[in-house]
Amino acid sequence: MNVAEIAVFVGGNLSGAGDAEIFRVSDLANAADGDIAFIEKAENLTKTNAACLFVPENFDAALPFPVIKVKNPKLAFAQVAAKLRPVAMRGERHATAVIAASANVEADYIGAFVSIGENSKIGKNVQIHSGARIGDNVIIGDDTIIHPNCVVYDNAAIGARVILHAGAVIGADGFGFVRNGASGYVKFPQIGTVVIENDVEIGANSCVDRGALGETRFGEGTQIDNQVQIAHNVRIGKRVVIAAQTGVSGSTVIEDDCVIGGQVGMGDHAKILSGAVIGSQAGVLPGKIVRPGVWWGTPVQPLDEYKRQNARVKGLERLKNELKELKKQIAELTAEK
Amino acid sequence: MNVAEIAVFVGGNLSGAGDAEIFRVSDLANAADGDIAFIEKAENLTKTNAACLFVPENFDAALPFPVIKVKNPKLAFAQVAAKLRPVAMRGERHATAVIAASANVEADYIGAFVSIGENSKIGKNVQIHSGARIGDNVIIGDDTIIHPNCVVYDNAAIGARVILHAGAVIGADGFGFVRNGASGYVKFPQIGTVVIENDVEIGANSCVDRGALGETRFGEGTQIDNQVQIAHNVRIGKRVVIAAQTGVSGSTVIEDDCVIGGQVGMGDHAKILSGAVIGSQAGVLPGKIVRPGVWWGTPVQPLDEYKRQNARVKGLERLKNELKELKKQIAELTAEK
Amino acid sequence: MNVAEIAVFVGGNLSGAGDAEIFRVSDLANAADGDIAFIEKAENLTKTNAACLFVPENFDAALPFPVIKVKNPKLAFAQVAAKLRPVAMRGERHATAVIAASANVEADYIGAFVSIGENSKIGKNVQIHSGARIGDNVIIGDDTIIHPNCVVYDNAAIGARVILHAGAVIGADGFGFVRNGASGYVKFPQIGTVVIENDVEIGANSCVDRGALGETRFGEGTQIDNQVQIAHNVRIGKRVVIAAQTGVSGSTVIEDDCVIGGQVGMGDHAKILSGAVIGSQAGVLPGKIVRPGVWWGTPVQPLDEYKRQNARVKGLERLKNELKELKKQIAELTAEK
Repeated sequence: MNVAEIAVFVGGNLSGAGDAEIFRVSDLANAADGDIAFIEKAENLTKTNAACLFVPENFDAALPFPVIKVKNPKLAFAQVAAKLRPVAMRGERHATAVIAASANVEADYIGAFVSIGENSKIGKNVQIHSGARIGDNVIIGDDTIIHPNCVVYDNAAIGARVILHAGAVIGADGFGFVRNGASGYVKFPQIGTVVIENDVEIGANSCVDRGALGETRFGEGTQIDNQVQIAHNVRIGKRVVIAAQTGVSGSTVIEDDCVIGGQVGMGDHAKILSGAVIGSQAGVLPGKIVRPGVWWGTPVQPLDEYKRQNARVKGLERLKNELKELKKQIAELTAEK
Repeated sequence: MNVAEIAVFVGGNLSGAGDAEIFRVSDLANAADGDIAFIEKAENLTKTNAACLFVPENFDAALPFPVIKVKNPKLAFAQVAAKLRPVAMRGERHATAVIAASANVEADYIGAFVSIGENSKIGKNVQIHSGARIGDNVIIGDDTIIHPNCVVYDNAAIGARVILHAGAVIGADGFGFVRNGASGYVKFPQIGTVVIENDVEIGANSCVDRGALGETRFGEGTQIDNQVQIAHNVRIGKRVVIAAQTGVSGSTVIEDDCVIGGQVGMGDHAKILSGAVIGSQAGVLPGKIVRPGVWWGTPVQPLDEYKRQNARVKGLERLKNELKELKKQIAELTAEK
Repeated sequence: MNVAEIAVFVGGNLSGAGDAEIFRVSDLANAADGDIAFIEKAENLTKTNAACLFVPENFDAALPFPVIKVKNPKLAFAQVAAKLRPVAMRGERHATAVIAASANVEADYIGAFVSIGENSKIGKNVQIHSGARIGDNVIIGDDTIIHPNCVVYDNAAIGARVILHAGAVIGADGFGFVRNGASGYVKFPQIGTVVIENDVEIGANSCVDRGALGETRFGEGTQIDNQVQIAHNVRIGKRVVIAAQTGVSGSTVIEDDCVIGGQVGMGDHAKILSGAVIGSQAGVLPGKIVRPGVWWGTPVQPLDEYKRQNARVKGLERLKNELKELKKQIAELTAEK
């Protein structure tokens, strides 16, 4: 694509020549000939050898190369990156892969030592990388990418354009037991399913447990970072973002468009209502309903309240000193009587 | 099993006909013909097509299908589930598995691409699923299930009826170093062992490090969730429950029947006494002794004290206002003199 | 090595006979003939069958076996352990390994089911254990050990004498998205690299993401525990220690010789200056600069301040009672007017 075509593709406003060919995206500092970069604010501009820049709409400096003015330069950059670097077609089914005869596999790429179980159905243009384990009766939609050494247990259903990063485990048994007096625990049946809808990305070494009896479900477009733990029967809505190392306990519901920080812990049967934002390391008690807005701390409270409370704790020393002063004054008043 | 046989099996009290065959367990909402479900309290009853229900002993509503009254319906349900869905015998040793000639393997199922090292001894009815790595000199007891892509390092000893979920790592080196001035760290030897006793379950992507010099040990019937980290030389007793993403530092002891929440952090050389319950996200300082009872917060304190302290912090605003009012009164008293 | 040679090797001062051969390191309690153990303080001495002990320089008890006095007995012990137990040469390339024809592999040991991609370059004496996945264009330096089922994505560069424990994932995509209004998220390009310098150890199931556009880098001699998460574009200096389950967000910098506890969370673009020590479970806000010294809590504060604040919160009950008493005194004064 040349610069002019890119301007049209992102709906931007081109200043300068449109004929230079763009081959790659890059950051400002490392950009070279053929690269496009971006700045979110005019003041972020530093020396660059980029062939073209996305800039914000109010950018008005004269540069020795073309710029494309857009409302959201970072978004335009991400969109062009996907266009310039489409997922490579591999067109190989490695001879070592073990695919059950009853499986229906249309995948474009199956790596070395992949195993695919009985009756599983794998869509078109799917990539399953080396060492990934796909169980029995698994469904995987078109254009999905399963990175090396992922494990998908039996009966899981995974949508289209999903990405599972290396070591992710989908559909392990949930953590459910019933105490039987002194003899210990009896395992509660963990025989439900997992459904991952389209356009979900799940990070490396993250875990999503199957439902105990029902299902665990992730809605379309949801983004999960590395080392996240999702317990049995959790339901996560569409376009939810969950940062690394967060853990969600059984049967909790996270509605559409929530944003959850890293290392957050949620008790079971909580409900995070659509549009809630929860800060990193926060703790949500079991059964808690978290309303839209920004939440922080353990147990979670509205960010404003959290800040006020922190300020009050910080102010304790002053409070103590004031109290001491009052004591002195009262002692004087009493003595003067 | 028919309903009457199930009633006998769980020691329950049957109301209604006992001849219907039960094939599966299910939750209330999805139960169909041939399914048994349960309710923990009478008020949890909703419309269901189950063929039979476990109900609490005080349940007295008349239903159009048989019910079995038991002391603990959830426990009865879990016990019947295990009876109705015994672990499947697979009876296959995949041609791709690489098993050392010196290994003694009686296992019932060895999946594709499994590797088993020198002198390892694998018991009867064991299942080792695809891509699992069993090192040298490993012992695995009867009826144990190792899910795909688990890694068991050399010399680990794993009991009978143990379950390791996908991606679990047993016996990696502990995290021990000695600082050698400006030149950095020298690795402390990590040459001990791991012993996992019978009936332990370990969640997906959890890690249990080998002892540095001695052993790391898990007692019988202990239940470990996903993404738990157990450091070198930790000793965990029998029937301990540890929820997801908890981390236990080196040489800490957790005695029998403790219950540990998710995302708990424990420093090294701590001691959790039998019967202690530690809430999620709590922090136990190194060397701390935690007595029986319920503990919460960082650093952990008894739950009652934690709640009182939280209430006091919440009450700070009122305290401040009261102080302000007193100031005013004193100023008035002083002025009136 | 005999006792006299060991004394010379560690620069220690031998008391007793020097001719006994030492074959192994051991802890005090389990030591037997041929074993060397250590005590850090004279009062730690208990009954032992060790053939020799490292002891501190001020140790002066008479023992029935030789002792070697050194400044740091634990360090001497670790140094001798490495000498007595050199990494075993395996000298095997398993027939099942799939190695791209374009890869340049000098490794000493390649386990079963290993895969190595196009144009990768693996140094001398490297061990790559069963099921490990090495992508395309990966560089691995001499004497490095990659444990089973690790995944190294394309283009990563790993130094010499590095150890990756089982299940570690190096170079997965970072977690970066741009919101595109109601339609959800567009993936920000994650096309940078990871560089792991010499003598780094990374724990089991830890994850290190590639840079989004630039690189993620670990300096020489850095030690990372299990289940640690390092996001895109993080730069970690030399001889840094990070304990288990800590998470570091994008573009954060941790300078040389920092020590970071377990379960710490760091926001993005933070900067931890050389020599800072951060306690377990601490939280570092995005953009925060943490200076040398000991830090604790969320958000992090100097340890002294953290302790003072905790003490103040603990003292709230007394503060409340004092205020109550003052109220009473003022009411009396007012009534007496």
